[in-house]
Amino acid sequence: MSQQGLSSISSSKLADFVNVNHWQIRKDFSYFGDFGKRGVGYNIDTLARQIKKILNLDAVHKTVLVGVGNLGSALLAYPGFRIYGFKIAAAFDNDPAKIGTKVNDVTIEDVSKLGTLAKRQANLAIIAVPEQAAQDVADALVKVGIKGILNFVPRRINVPKKIKVITIDIATDLARLPYYIPSS
Amino acid sequence: MSQQGLSSISSSKLADFVNVNHWQIRKDFSYFGDFGKRGVGYNIDTLARQIKKILNLDAVHKTVLVGVGNLGSALLAYPGFRIYGFKIAAAFDNDPAKIGTKVNDVTIEDVSKLGTLAKRQANLAIIAVPEQAAQDVADALVKVGIKGILNFVPRRINVPKKIKVITIDIATDLARLPYYIPSS
Repeated sequence: MSQQGLSSISSSKLADFVNVNHWQIRKDFSYFGDFGKRGVGYNIDTLARQIKKILNLDAVHKTVLVGVGNLGSALLAYPGFRIYGFKIAAAFDNDPAKIGTKVNDVTIEDVSKLGTLAKRQANLAIIAVPEQAAQDVADALVKVGIKGILNFVPRRINVPKKIKVITIDIATDLARLPYYIPSS
Repeated sequence: MSQQGLSSISSSKLADFVNVNHWQIRKDFSYFGDFGKRGVGYNIDTLARQIKKILNLDAVHKTVLVGVGNLGSALLAYPGFRIYGFKIAAAFDNDPAKIGTKVNDVTIEDVSKLGTLAKRQANLAIIAVPEQAAQDVADALVKVGIKGILNFVPRRINVPKKIKVITIDIATDLARLPYYIPSS
């Protein structure tokens, strides 16, 4: 909306966008302070900045990718990341044919050199390796100080409690669809 | 658990798995009938069958993939789909170099032939095309009778209300991580 030149938005309009009640919008925001003005609504730029701050998205988070197969390559090229200012800063694989090559301006490094990340201040990682390698990679990432992991491997990975893992389970998402489809 | 030879499970153990209270498990199941036995718990096979039935996952759903780039290729090979019995039955692309080739036993077809799906009883589709093609592909899928869409394109697609769309927004998932990461 900011890009469209709009400067403010009402809680009702925001509510329509996210399919909740307008009082819920106001109530939720009220936990973080008083963002809106009665009769005017919310200043869009201020609101976006506040939300980014709440979500810790106003800082730059160096993200590394482990596993540059089909999925990893797709993630390196994924246009959606730029929306939140994410950039994949390093990528690792174990395939000698890939190591040293560039994908989307990122040079693929040898996964056995994951330890070098310790000095490179990355705090987020994306795991897109085969199932059987996932836990070893997770262990190595924890060792170099990664704080959050986006896991695309359809299995549970075990990490210390202070590390946040979000698993993207594409199969479960697909499995949500049939419920809505009337049997013919 | 069934594969591990277990035959029954208590609501408390189920609750531990999914991180909710055991009374919530019992309450939720009670909406669909009486699955458990006091003191014994739930028969695992029966419970799995009941849940599959509730979620409409006991029927076979032919799934088609549109867009066989990096992400699409990864989806064709994705090991997680078999967990719910999904199989991608057809794949489409507009790249002449890909049309006619096989990926994971699926022959890639010309996207201009999407119309042929009408006779092939597919009801689920996965969209993994570039952003600018997404809406046209969605329109074509609705026309041939697709009832549910798993959308990997980071933009909103407009379809009639009766069509269920689940958008997998990888960037938003990644954006959830920084909140949990203490600023250093």
